[in-house]
Amino acid sequence: MAKKLRIGLIGGGRIGKLHGTNVQNFIPNAEIAIVADPFANEAMEAWAESVGIPKVTKDPEDVFASDVDAVFICSSTDTHAPFMIKAAKAGKHIFCEKPIATSIPAIKEALAVVEEAGVKLQVGFVRRFDFNHKAVADTVKSGKLGKVYVVKVTSRDPEGPPMSYVKVSGGIFMDMMIHDFDMVRYLSGSEVVEVNATGAVLTDPGYAEYNDVDTAIVTLKFANGAIGVIDNCRTAPYGYDQRVEVHCEKGAVQDNNHLNNEAFVSTADGVVSAKPTFFFLERYNDAFVAEEKAFVEAVLNDTEVPVGGKDGLEPVRIAAAANLSLKEGRPVKLDEIEA
Amino acid sequence: MAKKLRIGLIGGGRIGKLHGTNVQNFIPNAEIAIVADPFANEAMEAWAESVGIPKVTKDPEDVFASDVDAVFICSSTDTHAPFMIKAAKAGKHIFCEKPIATSIPAIKEALAVVEEAGVKLQVGFVRRFDFNHKAVADTVKSGKLGKVYVVKVTSRDPEGPPMSYVKVSGGIFMDMMIHDFDMVRYLSGSEVVEVNATGAVLTDPGYAEYNDVDTAIVTLKFANGAIGVIDNCRTAPYGYDQRVEVHCEKGAVQDNNHLNNEAFVSTADGVVSAKPTFFFLERYNDAFVAEEKAFVEAVLNDTEVPVGGKDGLEPVRIAAAANLSLKEGRPVKLDEIEA
Amino acid sequence: MAKKLRIGLIGGGRIGKLHGTNVQNFIPNAEIAIVADPFANEAMEAWAESVGIPKVTKDPEDVFASDVDAVFICSSTDTHAPFMIKAAKAGKHIFCEKPIATSIPAIKEALAVVEEAGVKLQVGFVRRFDFNHKAVADTVKSGKLGKVYVVKVTSRDPEGPPMSYVKVSGGIFMDMMIHDFDMVRYLSGSEVVEVNATGAVLTDPGYAEYNDVDTAIVTLKFANGAIGVIDNCRTAPYGYDQRVEVHCEKGAVQDNNHLNNEAFVSTADGVVSAKPTFFFLERYNDAFVAEEKAFVEAVLNDTEVPVGGKDGLEPVRIAAAANLSLKEGRPVKLDEIEA
Amino acid sequence: MAKKLRIGLIGGGRIGKLHGTNVQNFIPNAEIAIVADPFANEAMEAWAESVGIPKVTKDPEDVFASDVDAVFICSSTDTHAPFMIKAAKAGKHIFCEKPIATSIPAIKEALAVVEEAGVKLQVGFVRRFDFNHKAVADTVKSGKLGKVYVVKVTSRDPEGPPMSYVKVSGGIFMDMMIHDFDMVRYLSGSEVVEVNATGAVLTDPGYAEYNDVDTAIVTLKFANGAIGVIDNCRTAPYGYDQRVEVHCEKGAVQDNNHLNNEAFVSTADGVVSAKPTFFFLERYNDAFVAEEKAFVEAVLNDTEVPVGGKDGLEPVRIAAAANLSLKEGRPVKLDEIEA
Repeated sequence: MAKKLRIGLIGGGRIGKLHGTNVQNFIPNAEIAIVADPFANEAMEAWAESVGIPKVTKDPEDVFASDVDAVFICSSTDTHAPFMIKAAKAGKHIFCEKPIATSIPAIKEALAVVEEAGVKLQVGFVRRFDFNHKAVADTVKSGKLGKVYVVKVTSRDPEGPPMSYVKVSGGIFMDMMIHDFDMVRYLSGSEVVEVNATGAVLTDPGYAEYNDVDTAIVTLKFANGAIGVIDNCRTAPYGYDQRVEVHCEKGAVQDNNHLNNEAFVSTADGVVSAKPTFFFLERYNDAFVAEEKAFVEAVLNDTEVPVGGKDGLEPVRIAAAANLSLKEGRPVKLDEIEA
Repeated sequence: MAKKLRIGLIGGGRIGKLHGTNVQNFIPNAEIAIVADPFANEAMEAWAESVGIPKVTKDPEDVFASDVDAVFICSSTDTHAPFMIKAAKAGKHIFCEKPIATSIPAIKEALAVVEEAGVKLQVGFVRRFDFNHKAVADTVKSGKLGKVYVVKVTSRDPEGPPMSYVKVSGGIFMDMMIHDFDMVRYLSGSEVVEVNATGAVLTDPGYAEYNDVDTAIVTLKFANGAIGVIDNCRTAPYGYDQRVEVHCEKGAVQDNNHLNNEAFVSTADGVVSAKPTFFFLERYNDAFVAEEKAFVEAVLNDTEVPVGGKDGLEPVRIAAAANLSLKEGRPVKLDEIEA
Repeated sequence: MAKKLRIGLIGGGRIGKLHGTNVQNFIPNAEIAIVADPFANEAMEAWAESVGIPKVTKDPEDVFASDVDAVFICSSTDTHAPFMIKAAKAGKHIFCEKPIATSIPAIKEALAVVEEAGVKLQVGFVRRFDFNHKAVADTVKSGKLGKVYVVKVTSRDPEGPPMSYVKVSGGIFMDMMIHDFDMVRYLSGSEVVEVNATGAVLTDPGYAEYNDVDTAIVTLKFANGAIGVIDNCRTAPYGYDQRVEVHCEKGAVQDNNHLNNEAFVSTADGVVSAKPTFFFLERYNDAFVAEEKAFVEAVLNDTEVPVGGKDGLEPVRIAAAANLSLKEGRPVKLDEIEA
Repeated sequence: MAKKLRIGLIGGGRIGKLHGTNVQNFIPNAEIAIVADPFANEAMEAWAESVGIPKVTKDPEDVFASDVDAVFICSSTDTHAPFMIKAAKAGKHIFCEKPIATSIPAIKEALAVVEEAGVKLQVGFVRRFDFNHKAVADTVKSGKLGKVYVVKVTSRDPEGPPMSYVKVSGGIFMDMMIHDFDMVRYLSGSEVVEVNATGAVLTDPGYAEYNDVDTAIVTLKFANGAIGVIDNCRTAPYGYDQRVEVHCEKGAVQDNNHLNNEAFVSTADGVVSAKPTFFFLERYNDAFVAEEKAFVEAVLNDTEVPVGGKDGLEPVRIAAAANLSLKEGRPVKLDEIEA
C-alpha cells in the first residue's frame, strides 16, 4: 500500500475538527497522528477517538517533535505565524488556515522562514476548491472567453457575528472580504493594483463603535487592465449568498447560489424554491475536502501547492489597502502597501 | 405600396375580436374590410370603429358576397364547416379556428369542397407559433438531436370552464387535449397510430355527470416508432401550465413555462419567482399574431400554409380514438377511426 | 367615445418612428396628428401613411402652431431643450426623450419654462416601465423587505457604437450609464449623494482617443444611507445584459435577463439555453408602449407623470459627478455639482 | 460512548463496497465487522483494510454465525431472499438491496420468515432519501397542496447496460422502472391499483431479442383516485435524468435535475450550463448515506424502518403488472397479480 502522509493537527476547535474529521474519513493516503490544543479535554479526546486519531496533547511542541510529515495549523489567527515558523524549522510541511496573520511584516517573516526551510506551505483559501467557483475560474483560464474585462464577487453572510468578535475581527475587509480578495485574484489570473472602498453601517449600529462597517463595496483595478467589484454584507436572511462573475471579450461566465435542494412549489402565491445553503460549513463542505486532498497530493508527489505563500500575503495587503481607502476616502494603490 | 390582403371576419366574439384587432394593428399587408356577427350591436360597432374596420353586418352572406380575398372563421364550432364550404365556393381563402368540426364526416366534406375550390385553408392551431414550442420543434426538425424517442406534453388550464360549457364541449379530448394532439404531431414530425387513454374526475364531480373527466393522461405511438404522453388537468391554481419535451437519440429539448416576469425575491421563507402567465390570451398573445402573419403571407405569396386541412382533421381523429380508448379501457389504433 | 389625445411628433428617426408606430397601434386614446422632421422625405411619408399619420412636415414650428395637445420630442439631443421651451410656451404637454440636455444649466432653463407654462413633462427613462425591473422596484417599494442596503445594476450593450458616435456621445456616463443612474434612483427610492467611478478601455483602444472608457464601475452613496454599484460594458457578445438587484434588511430581490425563449437543449456537450434578447428595441419593446400609455393617461386624467423634470435632471448631475470622479480619481459628492 | 451497531456485509461488489465504505466513514454509531463474498480476493482484502473492516470471508455462513447485530445484503439478486431467510433465522436485522426477488412467492416467503423472526427489514429503495425527491414528497405529505391529482416521474439512464445484462435483467420494468414504481407510491402516499404500459425498442435493436423494450411509458391509477405516469429510457447522452412532479389541488411540486455545477457561460452561441450528474453513484451519493443512517437509527432506537417489507413487495407486483400489460396490450389491475 502507498505511503500515507502523517499529519499533526494544531488546534481542535471548529475548523480543526472539520479538517481532522475530513482527513480521517475522506483522504485515504493521509492520517492525523496527533492533535494539539491547549484546551484539550475529555470531549476532544472522545472526538479524536471517534475519528481514529491516536494521540491528543495540550502542547503543540509535541507535534513539532513528533514524526509527522506535515501540520495543519487551525489555531487562533494570532498563533498562525509563530506556529508556521516552528513547523518550518522542524521540517514539517504546512497547511495553514487563513489569514497567516493580519500584520504584513509578520506574514513576511513567516514566509521567509518557510522558504528557507524548503517545506511546502498551503494557505486555506477554501473557496478556490468550490465546484461552482472552480468551474468559473477554469472557464476563464481556458482562454475560450478571451481577455478578462470585469470580475465581480457578491458575498453575504446569513447573519453577523457577535459584537465581541467584531471587536477583534480586524474589520470587514480583513475578516470577511479577504476571501473575496483571494477570489478575484483566482478568477482574474492577475494581481490587484488599486483599491477603492465604500462602506456603510446598515445592519447594526454596533459596528460603528468599532470603526467597522457591515456593508461594503470595493472596486478594483488589476495588473492586466481588467477592473472588478466586490460587494459584502454581514446579513442576508435568505442564507449564504456566494456568487461570482467574470465578463470577458467573448462572453461571460458566472455561477448561481447553491440551494438546499432543487425542488420548487407552484401555487397561487408564486413559484417557491429552496433557499441558498445556510453558511460556509454547508456551502463549502466538499471544498474543504478538495483542498485537503490537494495539499496531501502536493506533498506526497512533491508538486506545487495550489495556494501558496504569496496567495496568503496578497489578500492581506489588499485588505490593508481597502482599510486605508475607506479611512481616507480615496483610491489606494497597492504600491502604497508594504509588499 | 404592396397589395393588402382584404379579409372578412366571421364572428365578432372574443377570438374574432382578437384576430381582428391583431390584423388591424400588426399585419401591415392585410386589413379587415368587414365583420359579420348575428349578435352585432353598438358595442361591436364601436369596437370595429376603434380598430378601423369599415363595415359591420349581421349577415355572413354579406362577407361571401363581398370582394374580400379571404375570411377568418371565428364563429361557434358548429358553424365552422358550413361557413368553410360557403367561403370556398365563393373563392375566398380561409383561416378557420379549431376545430373544423367535431364530426369527422363533416370535416371531410368541408375539406373536399375546399380542395375542389382550390382555395387555401389554414386551421388555427396557434401553439405551433409560440416562441417556446417552436424553438423545441425547430431543434427536433434540424436533425441535430437525431431520431425521436419520446414526445411529452403537459397542459393544464388555470381554472375549469363552467359546467354549462362542459355539457357541450365535446369532452376533454376534443375540447382541451386537441391542442396537444396537434402539438405532438408538430413536435414528432410523425403521425399518431395508437392511443391509450387514462382519466379521472378529481377537480369537480360535475364532470362525471357529463361522462367527462377533468384529468387525463394519454400515451401515444407514432408511425416513426416513437412513443409519447400527454397529461392534462382542468385546474392549476398557479396559472397556465404549458410545457413540451422531446427526448431523442443525441439529447433532449424542452421548454419551461413562461412566467409573468423574471424577478425573484429571496427571504427567510425561500426564493419566490413569478407565476406562469394566467391563460391562453396572455401566453399565446404573440403566437396569434404570428399565425395571422403566416396565413397572410401564404395567401399573398401563394405558398403553402403552415397548418393545413390534414392538420385540422388528424387531431379530431386522435381525440375520437382517445374517447373510445377511455370508454372501452383499451388501446385504440387510429386505423379504427374513420380517415 | 372618449377624447383622444392629439400628439405632434418631433423627429422621425428610429426612436421617433418607434413612438409614432406604438401610439398609432397600441394607444387607443391617442393619435399622432403630425410628424415634423427636417429630413422628411418620401420614405418618411410612406411610413406615416402606413401607420395612419395624416401630416408630415419639415418644420417643427408647424407642430407648435397646430392644435395638438402634446408633443413627443424625439429629435437629436442638442435640440431637446430648445424644443421643450417652444412646446411649453405653445401650451403643449411634453414627452421628451432622454437626456433633456447634457448641460445642466440648459436643463434647468427648460424645466423652468415648463413649470412656468404649467404643462406636463415626462422624460423617456423607459426602463422604469420594464416588467422585470418594475417588479423589483415594486417589491422594494412595498416595504416588505424593509430597509434598503445595497442597490446593484449591471448593464452591458451587445456591441459598441461607431467611433463617430463615441466622439459626440458625451461619454459612457452621459450616454449609457445615465439609464442606470435613473434606475438606482428608481430602485432605491432615494437620491444619490456621492459617486466614485472606475473605468478602463478594454474593448477598443478607440475610446481612449476621445478620453472615454468602454468599461466602468461606479459606486454610489444614497441619502437614505444605502450604497450601490453599477457596472457597464460597451460589448457583450451574448446580447443585451440588463440585471438589477436590491439587497435589503429582510431579503433581496433581483431579476434575470430576458431570454429569446425558454427552451433548452441537453446533450453530451451541456445544457444550452437561448441568449438574452439582442438590444434595447427587443428588450424594452413592451416598456416603450407602457411609458407612452402612462404619459397619455397622465395628461388625459390630469394626474402626475411617473417620470418628471427632476428625474430628467438628476441622472445628468450624477453623470457629471461620475465624469469628475473618473477624471480626478476621487469620490465626488453630488453637492459639488450644480443643482 | 453509545453502542455501535455491528454489521455484517454480504457481497463485496460495487454496491457492497459503497455501503461498506459509507458505514465506516459516515455512520459513527455503526461499524462493519465482517464482509463475506464468494469472490473475496486480495483486492477485496485491501479495500476492507483501507476502510477498517477487520474480517473478510468467502463464506456467508460466517456472518450469520457471528455476533453482528445486522446484515447488509448486497449480493446478486437471486441470493437476496435466501440470505434474508438465513439472516432472519439467525436473529439479525436486515438491510437488503432491491429487489428482494423477482418472484413474488419468493418475496412473500422471505417476508414471512422475517416477520416470524421479529427482526427489522429495510429494502434499498435509495431514491426516497434523495434531497430533491424527499423535498417533493414532504411537500405533498404536509397537505398544504391538498389532494393529489397527478404523479409524474421521468427517469433516463445515461447509457444502456451490456446485452449480457439485459438478458438476465428481468426486463426494463423489473430492473429499471422498479425504482419509479417505488417512487410513485412514495410521492402519492397511495397504492397503485392499475397499470397500463407502452414500450418501444428505439436505442438498440438488441433489446428486442430478449423480448425487452428500451423506452417505456406506464400510466397508473392509484387507490386514492389520483393518476400517474412514468417514462423511462435506457439512454440519455446528457446524463442521468431524474425528475419527479406531483400536481395537486392547490398547486404543483416538482424537482429539476441535479447538475454537475451551477456555473453558466454566456456567449454568442447561447447560454451553456453544466449537465446533470452522470449516473446513480454521483446522483444518489448522499442518499445512500442517508438510507444507511436511517436503518442504523431504526435498529438502535427500535423504531420503524422507513422502507419496509411491503415496500419491497409492491414495486415487484407493479412491475409484473406492467410486463403483463405490455405483453397483452391492455390495462392490468393490480388485483390480477398475486398479493
